[in-house]
Amino acid sequence: MGHDPISIIDGVVENPHFSNLRGLCQQLSEQTQVFVALGGGSVMDTTKVLAASSGDFKTVEAFLKGKVDAQNLSIKEIIAVPTTAGTGSEVTHWGTVWDPENDAKYSLSDTRLYPSAAIVHAPFTSQLPVSITISTALDALSHALESLWNKNRNPISAMFAVTASRAIIKSLPLLVQDPTNLTLRTKIQEAALMAGLAFSNTKTSIAHNMSYAVTLDKGVAHGIACSFTLPAIIAAVDRNDHELIGYITTIFNSSIEQASQKMAAFLKALDVEVSPNAYGYTRDEWQALIRDAAQGQRGQNFSGNVEQLISQF
Amino acid sequence: MGHDPISIIDGVVENPHFSNLRGLCQQLSEQTQVFVALGGGSVMDTTKVLAASSGDFKTVEAFLKGKVDAQNLSIKEIIAVPTTAGTGSEVTHWGTVWDPENDAKYSLSDTRLYPSAAIVHAPFTSQLPVSITISTALDALSHALESLWNKNRNPISAMFAVTASRAIIKSLPLLVQDPTNLTLRTKIQEAALMAGLAFSNTKTSIAHNMSYAVTLDKGVAHGIACSFTLPAIIAAVDRNDHELIGYITTIFNSSIEQASQKMAAFLKALDVEVSPNAYGYTRDEWQALIRDAAQGQRGQNFSGNVEQLISQF
Repeated sequence: MGHDPISIIDGVVENPHFSNLRGLCQQLSEQTQVFVALGGGSVMDTTKVLAASSGDFKTVEAFLKGKVDAQNLSIKEIIAVPTTAGTGSEVTHWGTVWDPENDAKYSLSDTRLYPSAAIVHAPFTSQLPVSITISTALDALSHALESLWNKNRNPISAMFAVTASRAIIKSLPLLVQDPTNLTLRTKIQEAALMAGLAFSNTKTSIAHNMSYAVTLDKGVAHGIACSFTLPAIIAAVDRNDHELIGYITTIFNSSIEQASQKMAAFLKALDVEVSPNAYGYTRDEWQALIRDAAQGQRGQNFSGNVEQLISQF
Repeated sequence: MGHDPISIIDGVVENPHFSNLRGLCQQLSEQTQVFVALGGGSVMDTTKVLAASSGDFKTVEAFLKGKVDAQNLSIKEIIAVPTTAGTGSEVTHWGTVWDPENDAKYSLSDTRLYPSAAIVHAPFTSQLPVSITISTALDALSHALESLWNKNRNPISAMFAVTASRAIIKSLPLLVQDPTNLTLRTKIQEAALMAGLAFSNTKTSIAHNMSYAVTLDKGVAHGIACSFTLPAIIAAVDRNDHELIGYITTIFNSSIEQASQKMAAFLKALDVEVSPNAYGYTRDEWQALIRDAAQGQRGQNFSGNVEQLISQF
């Protein structure tokens, strides 16, 4: 970096929330010109808030709540150095912000939030515990698949998504058996980057919209919350979206029904439960949660049949 | 477009050269704010020159010859609408300019030359004659492969290149048999776009450096000049570049030796001669041309063995 950083802010929490971010923003030096985000998805999210805050969370909060325009935000340069392989935040212009007191989740969105550079280097992830390796890689897999069953899909995003999905499905089980294998770490990290490039074109879809409630209600890690639903969602994709069917059958090398089963078996082998019951939901609660998520902006991206999704539970 | 264009410039020639460009620049209206490049690679190249000229070719010529800096160029916005599937120029910041009187070829290069938007739409290519369909698609295939045996290669560029190469090798022979098939046209055009995204990361390599002399000396169409050498180049790639070997064996589903033979058979089936003799070169002339190209900037990108390349002739 040429010189020491002006300050180091290390009080980031998982799923950054309003009260934590308020305190972190106050720690900012006015001299800060460039932010280096060294960490996982929550560090990326926090850095995006800090870079947009000018040292005061109030303006960001007002922007998140739609009370002021983007022109009120002065956004500083960000360099992203991910230490997990999942978030994709190094190539998106979004940051997720939580307000658990009000049972709400916001997306900070501005094209100036694209990092100016990202250092994507597998050795930075080599010491990740297996549990976080799994949850972050599943987040990336969800990003890839969500960009496919997405009304904003395009041929370039689809190529990233198919490549990323195949790599994660192939390499993650191997990496879990051999967590220091840098070749496998590299494959997963490249896949996470490609998944990021995919959903940076499309936004996510219904799995993510459902996951926010699961994380808020039950404290389930984001990567698990946005992926345990994937088998059911695969079974509910729009059968008339022939391109989509083609992509999914390519990824799983099987029919949609078999793809759904393969996805469930893949998750179970990673000790990820696929039943909402395992996360503390009754059938009625879960069906209501799906209906609610389907109304969300990301839920409306879904190229699939919500009733068919609900009927599986 | 909302209103009629300020002017229409339609005097573009294949392989735009100094004297033609001088005349076209003089036709520019000072009011022009945005350039819409509607055509193939030569139209894209010409538009990039026009957009950088401010109505006078002199500054562009001085810049190409290294006599003035980029800051002397005022570059206007470009929207690219390709009507061939090959150039990739809609996603690069380069334009090729020829000076046949001095046996020279220049590359106009400035990041402001990236088109602000590209409309990539297969029906715009549906009336292309078969011969141009072939030569432009082979240009795209050469872009893809050249970005692989390239010292500037990265995992993202490689993914674009492998995907594009496989698509062209699979779909181009089918399209030649069925030239109005829009599904095949779309596959080739998406592949050309992906190849463009690949080599926009890496620049091209030795096949292109060799091709410029072939086009200048013998008037061979660019897409043929930069692709008839591909079988020989495949046979000369660096066997210690294991990633590269992996990419090529994935594309051709065979060993390097077989890949070289498959590439030659692919070209012959399209009536493209692979011997330099067929283009009017003696063995000595051809070996000298390779040595010369290997010294060029793009030649130096080559991850391969130049002596092995030469020894094949």
